[in-house]
Amino acid sequence: MAGSTLATGQRTLARLLAPLLCLALAGCASTPLRGTGDLGVVIERASGSVQIVDNSHAQSLARVQGLGDLSHASVVFSPDARYAYVFGRDGAISKVDLLTARLVQRVEQASNSIGGAISSDGRVIAAQNYSPGGVKLFDADSLALLASVPATTGANGQPSRVVGLADLPGKRFAYALFDADEIDVLDASTPTAPKIQRFAHIGKQPYDGLASGDGRYFIAGLYGEDGLALLDSWHADAGVRRILAGYGRGRQALPVYKMPHLRGWSIAGDYAFLPAIGQHEVLVADNRSWAQVATVQVLGQPVFVMAEPGGRRVWVNFAFPDNDKVQVIDVPTRQVIKTLQPGRAILHMEFTARGDAVWLSSRDDNKLLVIDTASFEVRRTLPALEPSGIFFSSRASRMGM
Amino acid sequence: MAGSTLATGQRTLARLLAPLLCLALAGCASTPLRGTGDLGVVIERASGSVQIVDNSHAQSLARVQGLGDLSHASVVFSPDARYAYVFGRDGAISKVDLLTARLVQRVEQASNSIGGAISSDGRVIAAQNYSPGGVKLFDADSLALLASVPATTGANGQPSRVVGLADLPGKRFAYALFDADEIDVLDASTPTAPKIQRFAHIGKQPYDGLASGDGRYFIAGLYGEDGLALLDSWHADAGVRRILAGYGRGRQALPVYKMPHLRGWSIAGDYAFLPAIGQHEVLVADNRSWAQVATVQVLGQPVFVMAEPGGRRVWVNFAFPDNDKVQVIDVPTRQVIKTLQPGRAILHMEFTARGDAVWLSSRDDNKLLVIDTASFEVRRTLPALEPSGIFFSSRASRMGM
Repeated sequence: MAGSTLATGQRTLARLLAPLLCLALAGCASTPLRGTGDLGVVIERASGSVQIVDNSHAQSLARVQGLGDLSHASVVFSPDARYAYVFGRDGAISKVDLLTARLVQRVEQASNSIGGAISSDGRVIAAQNYSPGGVKLFDADSLALLASVPATTGANGQPSRVVGLADLPGKRFAYALFDADEIDVLDASTPTAPKIQRFAHIGKQPYDGLASGDGRYFIAGLYGEDGLALLDSWHADAGVRRILAGYGRGRQALPVYKMPHLRGWSIAGDYAFLPAIGQHEVLVADNRSWAQVATVQVLGQPVFVMAEPGGRRVWVNFAFPDNDKVQVIDVPTRQVIKTLQPGRAILHMEFTARGDAVWLSSRDDNKLLVIDTASFEVRRTLPALEPSGIFFSSRASRMGM
Repeated sequence: MAGSTLATGQRTLARLLAPLLCLALAGCASTPLRGTGDLGVVIERASGSVQIVDNSHAQSLARVQGLGDLSHASVVFSPDARYAYVFGRDGAISKVDLLTARLVQRVEQASNSIGGAISSDGRVIAAQNYSPGGVKLFDADSLALLASVPATTGANGQPSRVVGLADLPGKRFAYALFDADEIDVLDASTPTAPKIQRFAHIGKQPYDGLASGDGRYFIAGLYGEDGLALLDSWHADAGVRRILAGYGRGRQALPVYKMPHLRGWSIAGDYAFLPAIGQHEVLVADNRSWAQVATVQVLGQPVFVMAEPGGRRVWVNFAFPDNDKVQVIDVPTRQVIKTLQPGRAILHMEFTARGDAVWLSSRDDNKLLVIDTASFEVRRTLPALEPSGIFFSSRASRMGM
């Protein structure tokens, strides 16, 4: 009787404690304490999933599924580097907790979207949309809608598609209106009532844009004509001016296998390195005058042209049929010093924060490569499902992302 | 009887479970899951303690004690932004876990030290020492000694004091030898057998140094003569050259209340802003030619001259008797646009990663101030014990720290 009572008592107590204990243990066991400064997100485009990786130890930590159409996707990070916001092609924003490897929130905010950004204070997420066009602002914690900003109506009566969205200092965003030949700067200091500064007639069909690393300049590439449109946000009253008039497809309409990403531009030393369109060339421009000062011959049509964080060398990947190769340019001599053939369909490159390694995604070989930038040796290969973009959490503290 | 048995059973079970439950709960309760990208360390110089702060929410999280003499201290971070390495004046390196708020390791490695750095891959901690001189390398995980690098013997037969230590890309460090008029570059690729490249006769008594944000340039200030010594690490064979010949104390030996910190230098736009020595001036130099192009009059002897991350404005604090004031310079117009009087003995300033706020330490008012850089309003005041240096974990991904 006493034994039975004891057993009952134990069971009662155990029942009482079990959930608490399980909760406590599960909370600890599933989420070991760790810093978040060296994490990363790899887009697995075909499966709608992302891998969470650790770039200090070159290892995969987890896979998070259910993110929808990631055929074109980009990622920004919360200031604490705990959360990744994944912008999918299908217009959804997915908020992923990198510590628990959970999809904590998902908002379908448009039917076709091309990316987004996070405000300098980390409180506002901005999404740029193709269909319907315009920009939407969301609370970074809850993903609640704060404001919907229609873009200038295009010629067809539809809101303009929005491209090139980038964060600027002071809770601002810059972007271009493809159908309205316009660059806008949005001030999200009061995110429910954003202020818009508009610059019209900046050139035909801006198709992408980028901000400089200090968030001062915004540059839009033009699809409808040669040249680029530059806004110096320190001197916004002076308006937008045209630079690099020779930049574009030119009179000889060469076949362009893949429009280069302007986000692949790089400032290295005193120069900007940018992918020529349709040509087997990387162009070098002075980052003060924006005049072209040199051309570097490369083996194919460049897509991403990315400087190591120290700016000493620039890495280039290519459009089909040369997308199995990567070339490395020495910045002072402007010579190609290395050609690598790391895998089929190298879609993206991402450097560790201080440049000791570069990660490459090889979509058609279903792998990630971690390459030592000092020796060019492959330090590690990791399996991945048709990987495309790679985004490291050190972006959390950078501008123009 | 049954009740007593039940109670005994419960007690037995509770005794059995209690440690486990406490461990589990304590593990979770004391260390809630959080990202580490927005943390910071504040030096409390008189009490040998540091505060761990959260710069997203402008709040203090914990105090860690027992770090020794922090009368001159600096901090670097592990790549995952979880650990802070605090270099104290007494030659000790203290490794602090920012998540658990624990001092996890402490090594007394010299009797007098002036700071340290972490290698670009995060694996090696380097300490620069006054007494005995030289540089020591430590494993970043264990703080085990990897190499002791003697500095060139000075005139008095002692190893030279080492100053200005900064990390460069490619696991290298640059530093200056005060007693040997030398700049050295150390390659820690094999940290147990570092390689040293030496540059002699660079100028009299280099007293501090800094690296540019891309880790390309290393500049040493000279105590024994005017001008500065510049090493372009991309063209190391060209050696060290002298720049800004007029920079220094000059012929008129003005009283210098506090030698400015070179680490306070800033590149903003195309210019470097630097504190004049002994003068009430901030000097502006072209960051390509390094020629001085302008002078900005300020209210006292500048100590730190720090650009907002976007480079649009430069903040200046001052030596005694003006160390209760801070001035803000507009970069394009090179005009002082604001004078603040935030507290007594403003010793340091640190911007949030993308510049929305700046934190100031007011030693003599025992407080930290969090100031909104857009409005100049004090967003929050936090108590602190004679605070000096403030270091945010976004430094983990930056070079030349």
